[in-house]
Amino acid sequence: LLKRILDNVRKTTPLIHNITNYVTVNDCANVLLACGASPVMADDPDDAEEITAICGGLNLNIGTLNARTIPAMFAAGRLAAKLHHPIVLDPVGAGASSRRTETAAGLLETLDITALRGNISEIKALAAGSGSTKGVDADAADAVTEETLSQTVDFAKRFAAETGAVIFITGAIDVVADTGQAYCIYNGTPMMSKVTGTGCMLSAITAAYLTANPAIPLAASAAATINMGLCGELAFARLTEKDGNATYRNYIIDEICNLDGDTLVGGARYEVR
Amino acid sequence: LLKRILDNVRKTTPLIHNITNYVTVNDCANVLLACGASPVMADDPDDAEEITAICGGLNLNIGTLNARTIPAMFAAGRLAAKLHHPIVLDPVGAGASSRRTETAAGLLETLDITALRGNISEIKALAAGSGSTKGVDADAADAVTEETLSQTVDFAKRFAAETGAVIFITGAIDVVADTGQAYCIYNGTPMMSKVTGTGCMLSAITAAYLTANPAIPLAASAAATINMGLCGELAFARLTEKDGNATYRNYIIDEICNLDGDTLVGGARYEVR
Amino acid sequence: LLKRILDNVRKTTPLIHNITNYVTVNDCANVLLACGASPVMADDPDDAEEITAICGGLNLNIGTLNARTIPAMFAAGRLAAKLHHPIVLDPVGAGASSRRTETAAGLLETLDITALRGNISEIKALAAGSGSTKGVDADAADAVTEETLSQTVDFAKRFAAETGAVIFITGAIDVVADTGQAYCIYNGTPMMSKVTGTGCMLSAITAAYLTANPAIPLAASAAATINMGLCGELAFARLTEKDGNATYRNYIIDEICNLDGDTLVGGARYEVR
Repeated sequence: LLKRILDNVRKTTPLIHNITNYVTVNDCANVLLACGASPVMADDPDDAEEITAICGGLNLNIGTLNARTIPAMFAAGRLAAKLHHPIVLDPVGAGASSRRTETAAGLLETLDITALRGNISEIKALAAGSGSTKGVDADAADAVTEETLSQTVDFAKRFAAETGAVIFITGAIDVVADTGQAYCIYNGTPMMSKVTGTGCMLSAITAAYLTANPAIPLAASAAATINMGLCGELAFARLTEKDGNATYRNYIIDEICNLDGDTLVGGARYEVR
Repeated sequence: LLKRILDNVRKTTPLIHNITNYVTVNDCANVLLACGASPVMADDPDDAEEITAICGGLNLNIGTLNARTIPAMFAAGRLAAKLHHPIVLDPVGAGASSRRTETAAGLLETLDITALRGNISEIKALAAGSGSTKGVDADAADAVTEETLSQTVDFAKRFAAETGAVIFITGAIDVVADTGQAYCIYNGTPMMSKVTGTGCMLSAITAAYLTANPAIPLAASAAATINMGLCGELAFARLTEKDGNATYRNYIIDEICNLDGDTLVGGARYEVR
Repeated sequence: LLKRILDNVRKTTPLIHNITNYVTVNDCANVLLACGASPVMADDPDDAEEITAICGGLNLNIGTLNARTIPAMFAAGRLAAKLHHPIVLDPVGAGASSRRTETAAGLLETLDITALRGNISEIKALAAGSGSTKGVDADAADAVTEETLSQTVDFAKRFAAETGAVIFITGAIDVVADTGQAYCIYNGTPMMSKVTGTGCMLSAITAAYLTANPAIPLAASAAATINMGLCGELAFARLTEKDGNATYRNYIIDEICNLDGDTLVGGARYEVR
């Protein structure tokens, strides 16, 4: 299945509209090209809908939201929902400011979000209407560990039921859940948190995976997450003593570019609960 | 001639004002430094004209145009035209939305554009007032091939006559034409389309080449295109099996940084029609 | 002392709010992660204050200032000052346009700026209310050399006294001064000027160093500058003949990621005047 999901992306070259932050946007574009998709960015209200109309999927990321791009997200999202395009929402920093929490909550409520990807602090902030997010990184107290995994899985499934979206809670262990099932994914490395935008990149490729595999959103979401984590491992193995987080960023994207289905299947480490 | 054109850039360090998209802007800045020029970015209407005034050339790219930057492009462009600075227009996504098509058409009509660089879909959209652009990448049906080259050359020359600009139609074969002559350039690799912003980078260095070689816009435009394509080939030769599009991006800029005139002359593959 | 300053950054993981330009913002984020800090970017007036409130330090950079981000800088800066957060101001292009000069001067006057980092043209523009900045790079006529060092030191100390900020004048030799003392720092390489954003990156890590070492702003500022210059040297030593400015950018960030206190102390080249 993982292999077929990956191949579907490479075969169909889904065109993904991204309204995303200017910090990691270049990496999102290159990672979409790497995974076999094609990116387009348009964040002005006068431009966003027409661009959505020619795309197959939409990736919304509030990392550097502003008064101009928020209406563009809603407008593009409404049209994407009407066109039955998958929509990914990355609520960067939800819980860290009311502007971010409210915007993410509004998008989640108004639009037919297919997948919501954040760290535990961000997802909790949206679930609770409150939270204690430490900037855009997850609060250490909230880290998903072996001990808290079971309750995180339950929480994710409940929130999936409530929202109708596949819920990603990414961290040391990634939980990707719909109402009935949760993938607990062990791929990845701690050093990925030293590269800005690995979360944003995962959201971007998730949009591509969902667009190329519209009938199986949970499996497609899990495959994208395994892809990202596994490529983080493969890239880490390639690092020499002199390399740091900048070279690591490049190698992660390189691995995503070169990944084939057999490697994905062979390297996947997950359980379904 | 190619060698002299390159040396003129390195000798004069042209200062290039870029109003460009936030996706590939960092690569545009580094590629300008690599080729021997100096970049400056200013996209607010209150700032753009004064920055244009101290520069030698202007690069306009509508990749993430918005309500604030469009007036800045017109204002900077009008002043640049008055100061006889070369102006490059990169109509990213023209044909994909009416906002993009109209903005690019308006800039092309209002300003004294020196060079217009796009893929065949974008250029056709501007020539026809219509088009079927697939996002920001060229439509496969429109690809410039050996079979369609002759008619593409004729089209580019006619559009050059109509607009007064050097017309770039970049793709597998790059056509760079003024009214009388067209360079058909065979440098480049298919993998360049897996790196976001190779087109934007070419537009940026074209602005530098034009600024350093004001009397010969067609030859300067062709030299910039050959430079980009050849460095794409040299960078490709440097890739190992593990490398992907992220490393490739870096190597392309590295090669532009290290390129000397003899290598440019020796590696150039083109014909003039 | 240098070693302790570095260790304090790595031990406390300061969260730095950056309102900065979209050209080099990704490098600023990765360099903050590399040095041991954590970045967050928020540049909308409705978002900036709440983000500042959860951070430990603020980095303001006017490289692509606009009508929306300028009020966000003032709002975040006022709150940061109230919270006694260190504030770094990077007046990119001050002297190149009245908008930039006035905004930088206004921020410097209104806010309690802890450190002001620019090239000699930018700092002079702010000191004089005038200047002859060539874009965002320093004017060659103004270069800080052995011959002009003594008068540059005097100027920096006077301007530090006038503003209450640590004054950075970065170039071939970096001068970092408060009212009483000036570090003259010889680390760095000429090739760093071929990488866009090395100045922006230094400003970002300075904010982290100041936040982690609040009692010793001058020494923390000098340590950040030595860090940047030394890592430029170490990265340069790693370059092969094929490498250019793109690989150099990555290696600089890599070196900052891997730098330990002993290497910093061993490689530092400076005198205090």
